[in-house]
Amino acid sequence: MSTRTCLRITAAATSCAALLALASLLAPPGARAEEGMWTFDNLPLKPLEEKYGFTPSPEWIEHVQRAAVRFNDGGSGAFVSDNGLVLTNHHVALGQLQKVSSAKKDYVKDGFYAHAAAEEMKCPDLELNVLMSTEDVTARVLVAIQPGLPPKQQNEQRRAEMARIEKESTDSTGLRSNVIELYQGGEYWLYRYKKYTDVRLVMAPEQQAAFYGGDPDNFTYPRFDLDMAFFRVYENGKPVHPRHWFRWSRAGAKEGELVFVIGNPGRTSRQETMKQLEHDRDDVLPTLLQQFELRRKAFYDYAARGPEQARQVKDRIFGFENELKRSTGMLEGLRDPALMGARAAAERALRAQVSRDPKLAREIGPAWDRIAAAQAQLERRHKELSYRSLLGTRLAPLAGMIVRYVAEVQKPNGQRYEEFRDSNLESLRFRLFSPAPIYPELEEHMLAVNLQESLDELGPRDPYVKLALGGRSPRETAHELIAGTKLADPAERRRLVEGGVPAVQASTDPLIEWARGIDPVYRELRDWGRDNIESVEKLEGNKIARARFAAYGKSIYPDATFTLRLSYGTVAGYPQGTSRVPYKTTFGGLFDRAASFDNKPPFDLSPLEAQRRAEVSLGTPLDFVSTNDIIGGNSGSPVLNRDGELVGVVFDGNIQSLVWDYAYTDAQARAVSVHSSAMLEGLRKIYRMGSVADELQGPAAAKPQALTSSQGGSQQ
Amino acid sequence: MSTRTCLRITAAATSCAALLALASLLAPPGARAEEGMWTFDNLPLKPLEEKYGFTPSPEWIEHVQRAAVRFNDGGSGAFVSDNGLVLTNHHVALGQLQKVSSAKKDYVKDGFYAHAAAEEMKCPDLELNVLMSTEDVTARVLVAIQPGLPPKQQNEQRRAEMARIEKESTDSTGLRSNVIELYQGGEYWLYRYKKYTDVRLVMAPEQQAAFYGGDPDNFTYPRFDLDMAFFRVYENGKPVHPRHWFRWSRAGAKEGELVFVIGNPGRTSRQETMKQLEHDRDDVLPTLLQQFELRRKAFYDYAARGPEQARQVKDRIFGFENELKRSTGMLEGLRDPALMGARAAAERALRAQVSRDPKLAREIGPAWDRIAAAQAQLERRHKELSYRSLLGTRLAPLAGMIVRYVAEVQKPNGQRYEEFRDSNLESLRFRLFSPAPIYPELEEHMLAVNLQESLDELGPRDPYVKLALGGRSPRETAHELIAGTKLADPAERRRLVEGGVPAVQASTDPLIEWARGIDPVYRELRDWGRDNIESVEKLEGNKIARARFAAYGKSIYPDATFTLRLSYGTVAGYPQGTSRVPYKTTFGGLFDRAASFDNKPPFDLSPLEAQRRAEVSLGTPLDFVSTNDIIGGNSGSPVLNRDGELVGVVFDGNIQSLVWDYAYTDAQARAVSVHSSAMLEGLRKIYRMGSVADELQGPAAAKPQALTSSQGGSQQ
Repeated sequence: MSTRTCLRITAAATSCAALLALASLLAPPGARAEEGMWTFDNLPLKPLEEKYGFTPSPEWIEHVQRAAVRFNDGGSGAFVSDNGLVLTNHHVALGQLQKVSSAKKDYVKDGFYAHAAAEEMKCPDLELNVLMSTEDVTARVLVAIQPGLPPKQQNEQRRAEMARIEKESTDSTGLRSNVIELYQGGEYWLYRYKKYTDVRLVMAPEQQAAFYGGDPDNFTYPRFDLDMAFFRVYENGKPVHPRHWFRWSRAGAKEGELVFVIGNPGRTSRQETMKQLEHDRDDVLPTLLQQFELRRKAFYDYAARGPEQARQVKDRIFGFENELKRSTGMLEGLRDPALMGARAAAERALRAQVSRDPKLAREIGPAWDRIAAAQAQLERRHKELSYRSLLGTRLAPLAGMIVRYVAEVQKPNGQRYEEFRDSNLESLRFRLFSPAPIYPELEEHMLAVNLQESLDELGPRDPYVKLALGGRSPRETAHELIAGTKLADPAERRRLVEGGVPAVQASTDPLIEWARGIDPVYRELRDWGRDNIESVEKLEGNKIARARFAAYGKSIYPDATFTLRLSYGTVAGYPQGTSRVPYKTTFGGLFDRAASFDNKPPFDLSPLEAQRRAEVSLGTPLDFVSTNDIIGGNSGSPVLNRDGELVGVVFDGNIQSLVWDYAYTDAQARAVSVHSSAMLEGLRKIYRMGSVADELQGPAAAKPQALTSSQGGSQQ
Repeated sequence: MSTRTCLRITAAATSCAALLALASLLAPPGARAEEGMWTFDNLPLKPLEEKYGFTPSPEWIEHVQRAAVRFNDGGSGAFVSDNGLVLTNHHVALGQLQKVSSAKKDYVKDGFYAHAAAEEMKCPDLELNVLMSTEDVTARVLVAIQPGLPPKQQNEQRRAEMARIEKESTDSTGLRSNVIELYQGGEYWLYRYKKYTDVRLVMAPEQQAAFYGGDPDNFTYPRFDLDMAFFRVYENGKPVHPRHWFRWSRAGAKEGELVFVIGNPGRTSRQETMKQLEHDRDDVLPTLLQQFELRRKAFYDYAARGPEQARQVKDRIFGFENELKRSTGMLEGLRDPALMGARAAAERALRAQVSRDPKLAREIGPAWDRIAAAQAQLERRHKELSYRSLLGTRLAPLAGMIVRYVAEVQKPNGQRYEEFRDSNLESLRFRLFSPAPIYPELEEHMLAVNLQESLDELGPRDPYVKLALGGRSPRETAHELIAGTKLADPAERRRLVEGGVPAVQASTDPLIEWARGIDPVYRELRDWGRDNIESVEKLEGNKIARARFAAYGKSIYPDATFTLRLSYGTVAGYPQGTSRVPYKTTFGGLFDRAASFDNKPPFDLSPLEAQRRAEVSLGTPLDFVSTNDIIGGNSGSPVLNRDGELVGVVFDGNIQSLVWDYAYTDAQARAVSVHSSAMLEGLRKIYRMGSVADELQGPAAAKPQALTSSQGGSQQ
């Protein structure tokens, strides 16, 4: 499977990120207002100085980098107290909330409130990362590649060197170490992370308060969501005391002010070639929309079986509806002649620049056509890549991972699939052995849906379909596999992984046998993608990136890679029709919206909002919008003022921002955040969690210097 | 000037109606949901019965007709107590509020509050009409026309007969009597009105409360306007006791309920031919937009001279901004290929039907082409018709009216211009002699603007320009005319009119001399329009109407004519983007919107709203939307439930309804009304006018039968 398609599907299946994508339309980039998701080695210091008279100090930069947190299952967050308290969105926490809930106690619906340390609840498989350092390893990676060889071999050398760098770093520092490809392979950077796996839930509001307005209001603004959640990070059974954490702003976001978003945007396609975009437009997104829709319906069918079944799939329905809406917006962007015209013009301009220099023309000129040729190959196998899918299932992919795990770890590190590289193994095992509940009835239902889709779309003679069904019907197959498997038990998964190849080979677990059966066709397709598509995209992408650097220097930023970025922007409403949309909303607006719909779902107040509304100060800001350039993965990112104080938490983009995957505009497109004042008001008035509010506000009141002081045993 | 163009400009110049227009797109009409502005002789009883199981009784029909009131300067209203209290919009009352205000007391800004009968303030020139009866006079008008004659002569016969019918009726009944042309001349009806000219102001809120959000929010929804005003009708120095008046609904408008709007929609173009629409699209509206913009700017320039000047033109700025926005929306409708395509298809279908019947084909077939030929003629003189304009001035048109008055009344009734027919003279004199203040500085400024525009657009050799300027500059001319005239004094106007031709001929008032000078070119152009355009449009329009009746019977309704109509609809929100717009808003939403903009104009609360907000119940409905088919002129129309109780007052249409001039749709287009509960809440809590609220609620509580009871000396 090609990396591009794979990343898409992974993102769709696992992330509940409610945010979007970004890309530089015009050459040279940076021309547009406040565009850009900047890496910390290349911050936009010049425009910040010129436009805002603001020059962040090295301390400021280190501080905001270290106080930011990545949620590895697809979001962002931040330390917000010296006692390890972490803020993110409710919908980033949703997966964990679902996993700790049961038929008896539904924390998704009712919220979660720890009033004392002992009540803080450990998350089954939540890993947080803090970026500790970055190092440019481009030269080392490129030197390892022999340009004369065929792409497949060059790609093997490239991957092997990346694995080597990661392993060396992990061995020497003990930190999670990943080599990140920036600028479509134009640069390689070693990112080292401090990893936290003892993360405990402190507070989450009711989902109806966090996700007020439901799917209809998702990706819209004005908005009235208290989309927040608080965790606490532990090490050795005690809260960590981070050196860096964000103080709470007294006033919160104000109209017109400069604000920064620090987070981990997941993926954008702003520097891909036109052929790659056309493939997204004509193949990838239409197929995905169809697949998402099928699964959305399947989850609703399942939920209709009863209240417990409905509870089990609440987060999945959220996730798929979110992806459906997001992908629809992205597709509209790619079908917009203005957007595509501008992208085409930018590509023509760059190619023209390359062709004017004989040396560049010789070395780089053919890169676009080679990528186009790879795209043509990709289209041939697009159906297989799409429809050998297990989207929306958990047990079957776990079986595949176990089968591959024991085989891959026997290979040299540099020859393994990425997720089995030494540097990633620990995180992978954390997920593999998660005690989060698995519901066999749901697994059977969704596996049958996937197998039926494969059969319908690929036909009975497809090699994967033959192996996956073995002549049975999809329903029979799913029933037999799920009824007989013991993989829902994490101990059994651990037994197999630790038993290695012999244990897996000897297993008569029907799901393991099934995964062993389809493994060869899985590998064939994935290897084909790696050797024929990824190899070309990376090697030729590197050349195009060099052309861009030659033309524009480092005034450009790389496409999003789910690594730490800074974006700057302004708190600002926008024109709509003949009127204006305000920069913020208030609690009064929430109550009005509920009343205007006679409190009918999904516009009803949550029970606690309804019960305690009289205590809430109506004019308190609730959500606000800013021009910060964000995308899915930025969910939960802290929004900071120039003093580095927290003024909000990003949770969405409006509908006009859905094209940011491909191009940034700020005519109407906006990032949507929960206002810092709303979080305090919600904690104190609605959720009676004054202790958390005190923790957020307390030390800040005592210490006016936001960036100079810290206390406690530092972990960073 | 052709009637069509004339009506447009009149509407634009005098009406502050904030509502829109309607037209039947598809043949046969009535196919669409709740389309239609029905005359009382042809109510949509069948769809009401079929869709809602509602059949209004004859008493119901008589009741709603007689309780409705027409504001002759461009709006609608209703009796709402047995003591002559009348409800309309604030913006319908705006002109009168402006006229009773002065540099010392600004009732527009501060509102008006009569706490006792003695404080009720007489309006200078407000005439209200109540429709007492209607009578079909089509046969009589048509019989008076000799089909063999040229159009000009036929038109003279037509007009003479209409004048005769009106005069007979006025003489025999004492009622204001007008022959109304319905269905583009397809039917002629005699409408008789009871006329009230002693109308006193009782209560008007602050303009900022009535027009919250200003021009940006005008024609938008969700909306937060308390756009109401109350008058009381007097006769012989005492309040009238109408037999028919609307009781106040206890609950007000509810989601999904059937509601009726009874009012006077001003003008629509739903049955005009494609050629007429194209003329609107290509000539009339683009020119008007340019003219409105010029005057909008001129009023702002004047307002910039000082606070008193700003106060003087507040209603004019509102009026021109309203017209600008409305006309822009209408033009967008005419430029929408879907709308025009549907209109063209409907026309083709009707013409095809005509051509299939040899008799119809012979008689009616050429009608469209003849109207097209008249349009071609109209286009030739379009610039003269547009730019011999006095738009936004008052004194100069008054001078013209005086000069023509004395000449016209010497002619036989049937040969006069319409406004000088006996049946209209009393209302005309009421306006001519109005004591409303006239500001010479403003008149000079606006006259100069108009003269400069005429010079710029028509050139110095245009006959009108030559006479109007006499070689002077526009500014010199305006200064000399206004500095020297005494016409600002209503007594002088009365002296001239009552002195007849000799007094006007002898007058050395510079403005009268000026009006005498341009009178010949005025008459030449107006007569040309009457004889060459109107004559064809009316006579051929009658034929097309006959074709429509033949095809669809009376399942159709006529275009709006500023006469009483009933429209039915449903209280309903609508989809927007992926979400929904609620059917109502609340006071809580008003406070949220103000807070969301940090109370910055035009989104700030009015002083009294701000001062008394704590007393207001936040969940009280404020505005609501319904699918009722309305247009400019419907402003102030009562909204009734099926019991004939008042549940709201129409004050606007949303932006999507701006195409209703040409075609009704209900996908998103909605009428916007103030909720009956909001009016009570505003009266009691914000404006301390509990006496008015008591008057509205009191008798209704005592008398459950809304339609059977009445009391006091009836006037109707």
